[in-house]
Amino acid sequence: MRADLALVGFGNVGRRFARLLDEQRERLHQQHDLDCRIVGIATRRHGLAYNAVGLDGPNAAAFVENGGIVSELSGSQTLPSGATSLDVVRGLSTSEAPLRVVVESTTLDIAAGQPAIDHVVAALSAGCDVITANKGPAAFAYQDLRHRARDAGLSFLFEGAVMDGVPVFNLTRETMPVVNVLSFRGVVNSTTNHILTALEDGEDFGPALARMQIAGIAEADPTLDVDGWDAAAKAAALANVLLDARITPHDVIREGVGPANATPAREAKARGMRLRLVVEGKRGQTPSVKLRTLPGGDLLAGLRGTANALVLTTDLLGEIAICQLGGGLTQTAYALLSDLVTVRRRRAAQPGEQLRRSP
Amino acid sequence: MRADLALVGFGNVGRRFARLLDEQRERLHQQHDLDCRIVGIATRRHGLAYNAVGLDGPNAAAFVENGGIVSELSGSQTLPSGATSLDVVRGLSTSEAPLRVVVESTTLDIAAGQPAIDHVVAALSAGCDVITANKGPAAFAYQDLRHRARDAGLSFLFEGAVMDGVPVFNLTRETMPVVNVLSFRGVVNSTTNHILTALEDGEDFGPALARMQIAGIAEADPTLDVDGWDAAAKAAALANVLLDARITPHDVIREGVGPANATPAREAKARGMRLRLVVEGKRGQTPSVKLRTLPGGDLLAGLRGTANALVLTTDLLGEIAICQLGGGLTQTAYALLSDLVTVRRRRAAQPGEQLRRSP
Repeated sequence: MRADLALVGFGNVGRRFARLLDEQRERLHQQHDLDCRIVGIATRRHGLAYNAVGLDGPNAAAFVENGGIVSELSGSQTLPSGATSLDVVRGLSTSEAPLRVVVESTTLDIAAGQPAIDHVVAALSAGCDVITANKGPAAFAYQDLRHRARDAGLSFLFEGAVMDGVPVFNLTRETMPVVNVLSFRGVVNSTTNHILTALEDGEDFGPALARMQIAGIAEADPTLDVDGWDAAAKAAALANVLLDARITPHDVIREGVGPANATPAREAKARGMRLRLVVEGKRGQTPSVKLRTLPGGDLLAGLRGTANALVLTTDLLGEIAICQLGGGLTQTAYALLSDLVTVRRRRAAQPGEQLRRSP
Repeated sequence: MRADLALVGFGNVGRRFARLLDEQRERLHQQHDLDCRIVGIATRRHGLAYNAVGLDGPNAAAFVENGGIVSELSGSQTLPSGATSLDVVRGLSTSEAPLRVVVESTTLDIAAGQPAIDHVVAALSAGCDVITANKGPAAFAYQDLRHRARDAGLSFLFEGAVMDGVPVFNLTRETMPVVNVLSFRGVVNSTTNHILTALEDGEDFGPALARMQIAGIAEADPTLDVDGWDAAAKAAALANVLLDARITPHDVIREGVGPANATPAREAKARGMRLRLVVEGKRGQTPSVKLRTLPGGDLLAGLRGTANALVLTTDLLGEIAICQLGGGLTQTAYALLSDLVTVRRRRAAQPGEQLRRSP
């Protein structure tokens, strides 16, 4: 089945996704009967490209990384001056491919989750499924976007919002039927966890943060990490999706990590404890992002460096945890690929298309 | 959609499943359009019961727990003398319900995985989907049973084989599309992990094992746990399913846990390490169950008591882990419920039936 894609956002994640799509072309075809074509690329500052018969994703990524701008990509049709990402979405909506998917990967805006939310709304209004690596839409507007998608018979997916490609939302939706999640707690921000483990080992705050920036793991604006905003956005998304909350990151009780945590982090370690930045949420209560001194035997205490984990307390399954022991750009881009397959599977489940069965 | 079920095996797991099905009747109907009826119960030593219009599951469980035998259940039709569990399966196959599911929960036979494998074959031959809480079929005969199920257009599912209801096979199959699992390592036997954590705390082997027997967590024959057979069966199932192996538990390199491990367990803990019974498997290599002295920071070292975890090394997602932090009979029975919903979802994906969409 053919899928035409428009990439809205073409930063690190978008470019890695374009390459991953190419690298996994054969498996996508063989295992999922999915043949993808990138027909549009939209960026905020580097222009737009569109070609109804397809653009070369890896070539576009290399072109941009070598200083080129998207609007000068060879193969792109000429777009009217003043065209925006919404025009690229509208272009996609004219495709006759059975799957038309907007792949949103702009960076998190912590004020209001924009323009990502507008991109999701535009995609759904234009009759396209939408998948996003951006936490904003689920953190600020999950219930509204979910209803829009349902009413349009389309998908709105965001597996990468919390732990890159490690399944969190697919885990609860696809593999824990009938189960109710009662609460969650987790370490979900790699930059601050790396800093805290460095501090407890006697290192300084500045170099530890710098390492995460150099590695491309810290957010473009690292205050989003160290002030706890990234974790708060994840807590809001988790509460909205798993606990039926209707909150934004601004509702989350929030603490961050700073140089002043060096002494408590070292002291905690000396006592066999660990200082960790922990997100917590419980049905009917306001979620929080707080520094917690945890016993050494706590699963979250054992997470070092960029490792993440989410512990879910449930009614039927007791307490379970899912952990990301190593992460990076490929994992984040993979989350989009995983969402794309979910879109394909759902379309297969509609009449006239037989789902491939795997016993 | 109506599902008629035959329970083959009616021990702790089967009885808990019968009750869970009743407790979750409303959620199964509302969330999954699934209305289940138990039409048959087959046991090896306590007789059979069958009624095409349905038996009362919770009542049957209570009856048996009060010393009654299945063949004397009120509501059962009279069965010919010499009837076996295979006759109950054949009875189910005459049902006109759109879903006919054999729910297998006999105990593990480590010699050859019987009679569970015969039950699976009989179910598939009779045109019924089959779900099992028994490790045997996946550990001894996965590839054969998988092909039989595929050829018949039916499901053969066993989510509970490794970590009770905590998703392992659903995790990889439903939430990690395109990903290749390269290797696994884990702590997957609760009884031996409880014993090892007791030993490292200075307790004795005997009482620690006795606690697991009283709690109903140890296998009916506890040598299956302490000699490493349960872990070996899980390692074989994991290797067969995740790594395309064609092995049985007898191929797995195997160690167990005994009183002699008390000193090494205490010494490891004194050095900040932990002694754990670890299953390991890698594509193309023979899996093993071995006592390993792990650094304190290892996720598996941190598992205390009955906690279990499985770490998967993958090509696209790096290293991820799924952990069961508390387990018991409800979790094991839930695995069957989860498989039942998978059967329902797959049937929904066939032409003529629309899958319920959740954005």
